[in-house]
Amino acid sequence: MNHYPPSVRTLIRSIARLPGIGEKSAERLALHLLGAPRSEVEGLARALTDVKERVRICMRCFGLSDGDQCQICSDPGREPSSLCVVEQFADMVALEKAGAFRGRYHILQGVLSPMNGIGPEQLRIQPLLDRLAPEGIREVVIATGTHVEGEATAAYLGEVLRARGVSVTRIACGVPMGGDLKFIDQVTLKRAMEARHAVCNP
Amino acid sequence: MNHYPPSVRTLIRSIARLPGIGEKSAERLALHLLGAPRSEVEGLARALTDVKERVRICMRCFGLSDGDQCQICSDPGREPSSLCVVEQFADMVALEKAGAFRGRYHILQGVLSPMNGIGPEQLRIQPLLDRLAPEGIREVVIATGTHVEGEATAAYLGEVLRARGVSVTRIACGVPMGGDLKFIDQVTLKRAMEARHAVCNP
Repeated sequence: MNHYPPSVRTLIRSIARLPGIGEKSAERLALHLLGAPRSEVEGLARALTDVKERVRICMRCFGLSDGDQCQICSDPGREPSSLCVVEQFADMVALEKAGAFRGRYHILQGVLSPMNGIGPEQLRIQPLLDRLAPEGIREVVIATGTHVEGEATAAYLGEVLRARGVSVTRIACGVPMGGDLKFIDQVTLKRAMEARHAVCNP
Repeated sequence: MNHYPPSVRTLIRSIARLPGIGEKSAERLALHLLGAPRSEVEGLARALTDVKERVRICMRCFGLSDGDQCQICSDPGREPSSLCVVEQFADMVALEKAGAFRGRYHILQGVLSPMNGIGPEQLRIQPLLDRLAPEGIREVVIATGTHVEGEATAAYLGEVLRARGVSVTRIACGVPMGGDLKFIDQVTLKRAMEARHAVCNP
């Protein structure tokens, strides 16, 4: 590291702080940036500052947004009576990329985890309940992960939401596409078998 | 990409422009930066702008420097009569990391490559010759790569430098440490055999 001028050293250290980037990659990237056009590097620096200044939390779904409401919440083409509950913003992006859902989202910002002191109050469950009546929501799809805490959160939400008279569904658990049964764990196989459905005739 | 607010999209696009970082990694890094402390992100942005503003080319060796002369050229502890010629700044860093050389460096900024229109005038060969007398250089170690163009450049430099009365050496070519002979190419093995040396008795 001492072979670099101080400003390059600072850059390497800043880059190496990013997840998944070691010191070697940070060096490589810093040397690339040194050779890159000034406009490209300044563009990156500006994008970094901008993102911190502009990005806010959507007041409805708690996703990321440049304004008060995110693009999905303010899109009139979205099915208004369906709501999909996810753990994190990244989960919402994954579902959107798959084009899997046409309603709106609600980001819990985590899952119930009593071991880590995360109870219903630490998640955005009350804001979720507050959305039901004003938005006329009839179905809530619970799309938390299928790990233990995600399942527990789904069970808890299912109870709370059913008590409010909305239909509650859970994303299916089963063998992923392209999956080879001999490599799939037993719990998934059991679930996939339980959730078997009739094969449609063409 | 459309699932992100515009400022996040700009950031992802700027990050994905870096070498070896695909769109998936860029998304992951952008989401990390969104969650990271503001100071960290601003530090990275500042490091990027700083590096473009401060880093210059050392007027002696053509390495990177925050001032007129780099740290190595201005270090009085360096052996003044030895000069190591490398292709790129990164090669100098590699030698420095290995602690392999105690003299100073000269960066050619490439190798001779007639196919790509790179002749002696396109490289920093004249500035190298201009350093010999004023700096009292007695030995030049040629540490260009051992690929065809690196070898050709070394042969050319050897001739030019010997004509000026300095001792010219070339880094050794041989089996790398930890190398298994059966996986080493024939040219390397031939060279290693030719350059065999007496085993010292302890």
